[in-house]
Amino acid sequence: MKKILLIPDSYKGTMSSMEICKIMKKAIYRHFPHAELVAVPVADGGEGSVDAFLAAAGGKKVHLKVKGPYFESLDSFYGVLPDNTAVIEMAAAAGLPLVGENRHAELTTTYGVGQLIRHAAETGSRKIIVGLGGSATNDGGTGAAAALGVRFLDLDGNAFIPVGETLSRIAKIDISGITPVLRSVELVGMCDIDNSLCGAKGAAEVFAPQKGANADMVKLLDRNLGHLADVIERDIGKDIRNIPGAGAAGGMGGGMAAFFGVRLQPGIETVLEAVGFDSLLTGADLVISGEGRIDSQSLRGKVVIGCARRAKAAGIPLIAVVGDIGDHIEEAYAEGVSAIFSINSVAAPFEKARERCRDDLAMTVDNIMRALKLYA
Amino acid sequence: MKKILLIPDSYKGTMSSMEICKIMKKAIYRHFPHAELVAVPVADGGEGSVDAFLAAAGGKKVHLKVKGPYFESLDSFYGVLPDNTAVIEMAAAAGLPLVGENRHAELTTTYGVGQLIRHAAETGSRKIIVGLGGSATNDGGTGAAAALGVRFLDLDGNAFIPVGETLSRIAKIDISGITPVLRSVELVGMCDIDNSLCGAKGAAEVFAPQKGANADMVKLLDRNLGHLADVIERDIGKDIRNIPGAGAAGGMGGGMAAFFGVRLQPGIETVLEAVGFDSLLTGADLVISGEGRIDSQSLRGKVVIGCARRAKAAGIPLIAVVGDIGDHIEEAYAEGVSAIFSINSVAAPFEKARERCRDDLAMTVDNIMRALKLYA
Repeated sequence: MKKILLIPDSYKGTMSSMEICKIMKKAIYRHFPHAELVAVPVADGGEGSVDAFLAAAGGKKVHLKVKGPYFESLDSFYGVLPDNTAVIEMAAAAGLPLVGENRHAELTTTYGVGQLIRHAAETGSRKIIVGLGGSATNDGGTGAAAALGVRFLDLDGNAFIPVGETLSRIAKIDISGITPVLRSVELVGMCDIDNSLCGAKGAAEVFAPQKGANADMVKLLDRNLGHLADVIERDIGKDIRNIPGAGAAGGMGGGMAAFFGVRLQPGIETVLEAVGFDSLLTGADLVISGEGRIDSQSLRGKVVIGCARRAKAAGIPLIAVVGDIGDHIEEAYAEGVSAIFSINSVAAPFEKARERCRDDLAMTVDNIMRALKLYA
Repeated sequence: MKKILLIPDSYKGTMSSMEICKIMKKAIYRHFPHAELVAVPVADGGEGSVDAFLAAAGGKKVHLKVKGPYFESLDSFYGVLPDNTAVIEMAAAAGLPLVGENRHAELTTTYGVGQLIRHAAETGSRKIIVGLGGSATNDGGTGAAAALGVRFLDLDGNAFIPVGETLSRIAKIDISGITPVLRSVELVGMCDIDNSLCGAKGAAEVFAPQKGANADMVKLLDRNLGHLADVIERDIGKDIRNIPGAGAAGGMGGGMAAFFGVRLQPGIETVLEAVGFDSLLTGADLVISGEGRIDSQSLRGKVVIGCARRAKAAGIPLIAVVGDIGDHIEEAYAEGVSAIFSINSVAAPFEKARERCRDDLAMTVDNIMRALKLYA
């Protein structure tokens, strides 16, 4: 074993990808102390995504003041990778942890996210990745758009910055003033959900309750996003209601697609591109990936399968270390997964397993290495 | 992988060693169709032990009529291995399943077990292994001894065949009439428990309740075994009260030690000897063992460690496939276990895990083989 790539997803509800990488590294070094270990923590678009990208690809963190969720002044940041790609997590300017218990999806703005994007574009980034996750907002991305030159006008022709409860006041949208530099920037929206903008699976219905909205407010926010979609269709000529991911981050997915032609794509594809995964594979003897649960659903764009396909194309084995192994995993082998190991080491329910997951992960990787080195 | 040895213990409460071997074989053949797979199901001394020995070492089954637990006529059997070693499971003549609901530890006899031993000795076996497990009896092995020429005399000097409730009537023991052929036979008692003959950890206290004894009867049986030990000490000069395993099979462990100088030893050592494990190891690339739970207790004479020590001495890797992995297993690696994998593939309590254990075992071995063949 001369080179091993580590690229695990987080185990939802237990360990972050970054933490998993750290535990795996320690267990592997014990058996292959001279191996080159390349860890690629997988960002999911939410809080911590910038750190994950920087850990995976290197780069620097840029700190700046922007407006926070309530238009207050906020110390925020984004990351710049060595190839000048900027990585923004919207949670750093409009995230749920920023508002604490003061949750009001109808009053919060993504304005600061637009300021982060603008700063990155104006300081030379030609590709900007925006992580759409962990937001406290439901403004359809209008705040961010306003920060980037989009004008939202009311019936009296007055421009204003909409929030969730005032989306219904938008009478006209004018995109002629969009910051010119954005035209030469590739904008990518990272999101692992495919919710539509409105309706039963829309941003408000599914996510607004955790952002402080009661049942009546959810209805209002849903109606308002519908109104936004109507005006966008009339003034910009795009139907964003059913774009998969339009409902991400309080409708910011849909807004970014409408105003800036942002491409929404799963986190893993974004990460693999950004870190140059295919070239990292060169010379690797093994890839270790993982996720909280591998099952037939995993075959649709999840981390393990995304990595396995590329590893297979490069002829490199991939071992998946997972929480639970679901049924019908045979297809995973066909996609390039060489072998799958669960970290569950005792028969115990999830609440117990969760408490011991770090030790179990370390022990499982330790034993996989013990087995591999028998014949490697 | 040219040759793989399979030697798993049963997973208590879920799968027999024989069943585990079968599942493992199928999973391994899928990846190494040309490998020589040698399965050694591990007998535990109880019901099924003869079949396990025959499956592991080859040989034949001898059928004969003996007396059953209530002195009734019974079709019984024992095994003869290719080297003429006889293997007897006492459950085949004095086993709990033979009495059904009619459980009376105070009335049942091991006489038929003595008849099996006698038949094996008289037809040429010079080594006889007696599995001490699954008995319905509490006669201290006096029934078996009577069948082999030991005379138990009451106060009037009349010989009788004692059972649990009449052990107190033994006034004198005369071993001068023991079947002569037994002098040139090596007798081995297989038992994985180290209970003493009497007292709180004795045969009656611990095991008689499951053989139908109520609290009063347990006391009587315990007292009677104590009386037997007294007479043995006086007439034969052996103190069997505290021999580890004396309390096995209703005191049969102690009785056999007293009357016939039987060596009591753990099942795994008996199996490893009987199948010629060390020579089976020749040319093996891998040993796969396993047990229901590996932990610090396993380091004391259990199957995995017993095999690991010998595999280590022969320089052959051993992988343990287990139910649960307990704490403090580091020492297992030092003893020769190369790697340990749990079959638990989802976070679920034992009641759920038990239902899926066969699929989980198959999948785990499948994935271990997938991993090993990457570099083997």
